[in-house]
Amino acid sequence: MTRKIGIIGDGHVGSTVAHYIVTNGFADDLVLIDKNEAKVNADAIDFREAMPNLPFHTNITVNDYAALKDADVIISALGNIRLNDGAKEDRFSELAYNSEQVKSVAAKIRDSGFNGIIIAITNPVDVIASLYQQITGLPKKHVIGTGTLLDSARMKRAVAEKLNLDSRSVIGYNLGEHGNSQFTAWSTVRALDKPLTELAKERHLDLDALDNEARHGGYTIFKGKGYTSYGVATAAVRLAKVVLSDAHTVLPVSNYREDYDSYLSYPVVVGRDGVLDDVSLNLTDEEKEKLQNSADFIKTNFKKYSEK
Amino acid sequence: MTRKIGIIGDGHVGSTVAHYIVTNGFADDLVLIDKNEAKVNADAIDFREAMPNLPFHTNITVNDYAALKDADVIISALGNIRLNDGAKEDRFSELAYNSEQVKSVAAKIRDSGFNGIIIAITNPVDVIASLYQQITGLPKKHVIGTGTLLDSARMKRAVAEKLNLDSRSVIGYNLGEHGNSQFTAWSTVRALDKPLTELAKERHLDLDALDNEARHGGYTIFKGKGYTSYGVATAAVRLAKVVLSDAHTVLPVSNYREDYDSYLSYPVVVGRDGVLDDVSLNLTDEEKEKLQNSADFIKTNFKKYSEK
Amino acid sequence: MTRKIGIIGDGHVGSTVAHYIVTNGFADDLVLIDKNEAKVNADAIDFREAMPNLPFHTNITVNDYAALKDADVIISALGNIRLNDGAKEDRFSELAYNSEQVKSVAAKIRDSGFNGIIIAITNPVDVIASLYQQITGLPKKHVIGTGTLLDSARMKRAVAEKLNLDSRSVIGYNLGEHGNSQFTAWSTVRALDKPLTELAKERHLDLDALDNEARHGGYTIFKGKGYTSYGVATAAVRLAKVVLSDAHTVLPVSNYREDYDSYLSYPVVVGRDGVLDDVSLNLTDEEKEKLQNSADFIKTNFKKYSEK
Amino acid sequence: MTRKIGIIGDGHVGSTVAHYIVTNGFADDLVLIDKNEAKVNADAIDFREAMPNLPFHTNITVNDYAALKDADVIISALGNIRLNDGAKEDRFSELAYNSEQVKSVAAKIRDSGFNGIIIAITNPVDVIASLYQQITGLPKKHVIGTGTLLDSARMKRAVAEKLNLDSRSVIGYNLGEHGNSQFTAWSTVRALDKPLTELAKERHLDLDALDNEARHGGYTIFKGKGYTSYGVATAAVRLAKVVLSDAHTVLPVSNYREDYDSYLSYPVVVGRDGVLDDVSLNLTDEEKEKLQNSADFIKTNFKKYSEK
Repeated sequence: MTRKIGIIGDGHVGSTVAHYIVTNGFADDLVLIDKNEAKVNADAIDFREAMPNLPFHTNITVNDYAALKDADVIISALGNIRLNDGAKEDRFSELAYNSEQVKSVAAKIRDSGFNGIIIAITNPVDVIASLYQQITGLPKKHVIGTGTLLDSARMKRAVAEKLNLDSRSVIGYNLGEHGNSQFTAWSTVRALDKPLTELAKERHLDLDALDNEARHGGYTIFKGKGYTSYGVATAAVRLAKVVLSDAHTVLPVSNYREDYDSYLSYPVVVGRDGVLDDVSLNLTDEEKEKLQNSADFIKTNFKKYSEK
Repeated sequence: MTRKIGIIGDGHVGSTVAHYIVTNGFADDLVLIDKNEAKVNADAIDFREAMPNLPFHTNITVNDYAALKDADVIISALGNIRLNDGAKEDRFSELAYNSEQVKSVAAKIRDSGFNGIIIAITNPVDVIASLYQQITGLPKKHVIGTGTLLDSARMKRAVAEKLNLDSRSVIGYNLGEHGNSQFTAWSTVRALDKPLTELAKERHLDLDALDNEARHGGYTIFKGKGYTSYGVATAAVRLAKVVLSDAHTVLPVSNYREDYDSYLSYPVVVGRDGVLDDVSLNLTDEEKEKLQNSADFIKTNFKKYSEK
Repeated sequence: MTRKIGIIGDGHVGSTVAHYIVTNGFADDLVLIDKNEAKVNADAIDFREAMPNLPFHTNITVNDYAALKDADVIISALGNIRLNDGAKEDRFSELAYNSEQVKSVAAKIRDSGFNGIIIAITNPVDVIASLYQQITGLPKKHVIGTGTLLDSARMKRAVAEKLNLDSRSVIGYNLGEHGNSQFTAWSTVRALDKPLTELAKERHLDLDALDNEARHGGYTIFKGKGYTSYGVATAAVRLAKVVLSDAHTVLPVSNYREDYDSYLSYPVVVGRDGVLDDVSLNLTDEEKEKLQNSADFIKTNFKKYSEK
Repeated sequence: MTRKIGIIGDGHVGSTVAHYIVTNGFADDLVLIDKNEAKVNADAIDFREAMPNLPFHTNITVNDYAALKDADVIISALGNIRLNDGAKEDRFSELAYNSEQVKSVAAKIRDSGFNGIIIAITNPVDVIASLYQQITGLPKKHVIGTGTLLDSARMKRAVAEKLNLDSRSVIGYNLGEHGNSQFTAWSTVRALDKPLTELAKERHLDLDALDNEARHGGYTIFKGKGYTSYGVATAAVRLAKVVLSDAHTVLPVSNYREDYDSYLSYPVVVGRDGVLDDVSLNLTDEEKEKLQNSADFIKTNFKKYSEK
């Protein structure tokens, strides 16, 4: 009955997610949760004071885990971006802090009786998604990370600008860790009905430079404003809408891959039941190796953390 | 040809205005201007990296005053909220800094050849609107402040919560300065087809407390998160949409009142030509006095500043 | 879990309701039901072929009453407008045909196990709403007719045009039967912060002519195109959104009035639990009499039908 | 200044285009033109009576060619679907009637001083687009037909259903005439990161059957309801939005192809200046032949008409 979304973490990203949802009427009920009571209450009031001038009504509940019981989707946007050392461009620098938070949050989500889909934004997202899954005990296909849905958008933006095209007219995927070990799978990228590898030759595009733009795109923004928000929030809400409307959309998101025994980003079919189906990419050997490396990187780091 | 909006100031409010516009496709062209080049460029990239996952396309131009020439609407969201001493709840504390900025900005807007509508959010908004009008030389009806469109929304939220109603089912106006000298004109406020003054008796509502909630609402949020954003951004964008679509909507906004020789908030009919027509309220004597006091307060403070 | 809406009747009105919902992504699941299999299947395919160019996904199910079991809202848009003799402007001319249809439909809705809110558009709506309630056995507050939500919009349009205003800046209600015995309750109508009765004197407006425009507005459209669609579909979808989002909005809709022992239109507070609360209007004696007459008219006609 | 769209023809398609625009606030000014004064006026009133319950305002002008002078986009939706003999599935059966209408309309558009983009839906669209271009004297790149943007959507729907996917996760194009000589260019169609030709083998899909579904999809709907509306209206409005927002999107639309000396559908980059750039497909020899045949078919029929 009606759409209910929970958002854990009301920082730059969580509040941007909430703003996008509230201004577009994407949810009927919104549960905002943050340890900073003053901040999350201030945002709730601010949203309510926006509503008389908005065409949509959203019921906002604050800091009530019990209200998550019948939520359709929970978006985890908690994190401490200040721990993310921009200079090192390493999302794992947030792991120790974030994983502690997530352990506590995930237990509370589990205890609420929540039985929907978790969408993790919190970094390092591949590890965090795994943690959420383990602690909540939800099926693996019901816990998804935004992963390289954002990095793929960054790649599309970079490619589209070179080609003077709408970024929606570029298709293809960034794969692996939502972090430095990720890569653009150029074998999947197409524009103007051609593989990018072919277009790159025709138009003298530097694919490595474009790949770097996608990978480091977040850090350009990070250095400019101290955090990133719009790109990732839009990716998360798009993913939530695909889940709610059971759209069966192919999206590159962080999902549990049995073959790598790890969460990592790889396109899957997404719907109301989470990850519905697999997509089998025809990657080059080099890309397969990069993916393996990325999976290893995630697992090594996860292990490091787990043993601490 | 197509909708073009400029936003001056890319802080908490300006970027929230931009986010609302971009995610809803309200503008075709968006010009973002801020002295902090790194911040405004970061936001522009962040928005562009949201677009592959968004259904709307918006062309974003950064820090180019010349691009404002053919804009339909410019929203002034600049300001330095840190100068706003929450303890004193005094928007005039921002005046010295903001007015210096506005003088420079308004001259550049004028020099761009801009001939549209200016919507001022910058505080103290009644003074700032006046400054924009004087420096740009635009007709008085083409410079509007969001004014008590926000405070009226705050009042509606407070009243609606007491009555367990949709805040859109409450009508009425806060008038005067968008600041401490403002007041809820209870003679204009109605819900459930009754004057609030009558409902207050029936339901034992404390109108003064509600009035205070509207007036100080911003500070509750301010104390919680250090700024306010969603309510005022929504009010500004609603106002911009009314202008673009020439909707002839009655809105309580800051407009130049000949009778008080000042900008202050009072309902008017708004459309593509800015302030189209006057609304004549049937205020009580007490309310008229409050309005006069509020106008005097604005003028005195404006004078103080001008003589500095 | 997610928003599910059923639409019974896929004629001009039902398909317009569906189009508004599909293009705006207001529902995740849509159940379309019509006796004309070819028509409703054609519309379903047409909608699905719109989706690749639409930003929202909606799952469409056709002619499956069982699918209504967990719907949030069912909108009844069936009817045979050709039976509506435009010359006589009498919505009761549709009664015999529509009530037979509704009896059958309502039984199937009941048998599906549906436990949500029914929104009736089918004419004569006050009688039809009552029939739905009786046959489904749903609580009276869970069956609502669009009623004079449409006629009030027509009145607002007529008044706003005279005043050169946005029709959203006019407030007030048409009451009683969604038919010829309805009337504009001028004591509730306000614009420019004044009662219309006062404005009418100032501006030499003919209130009777405006009342007639609201009452006969549908027939102007009916004569021009053989049916009406956009106004009523918009009213129905707005009502559905208010229910889904539990907005607690005051709306003039057809609801069961104990004092008149009949469904008729009168403002109430609407939310997820249907009619949440009463609104007490301060009507003039003349208006009270008109309302009584309208109620009598509905009941007499309902009786006439029931005894057939 | 603000978005202005004209719609010529207020039948099933034109009014659906208008409904989509009005309910989503995509235009500020809408000019509706139809020879049937009663119908177009009825629709205008119906839309205005929807507005009090809608969040967007649109100014609607009826039957005023002069108002098209400063329109951004004109959508031609006129036509007489009853002349379209469903049994023969031949859009050229509408040519004689529609081309007479278009000659008169195009002259009036030219005389209005219109200098924007024409989007033709009217069938046979490749011929009609050419006629509009010749008579208005607008640059060829400023007159576009919706063409196989609709048929491509139909193909995507058919393919997606077989694969149990979101139709937006299928890419590729139908090319040539928006009529029987069109074809799905399977070499351009991809899903699940594979060419459809490959997937077809894996999953035993019958590509010819799917091709037929796309080509004859319109007639399935036509037989069910006597016309088609939602698919084509959505395609036209998407195209208009791409033009207004200058999105540089790759879309398969009917555009003038110098190599074939004819309008026909082939993907191009679309933006505010109409057709901005060419896309070069790597078609198979068989597809190239089909495209040549389709072009010949269009030209032969155009000639036949021209000599009458």
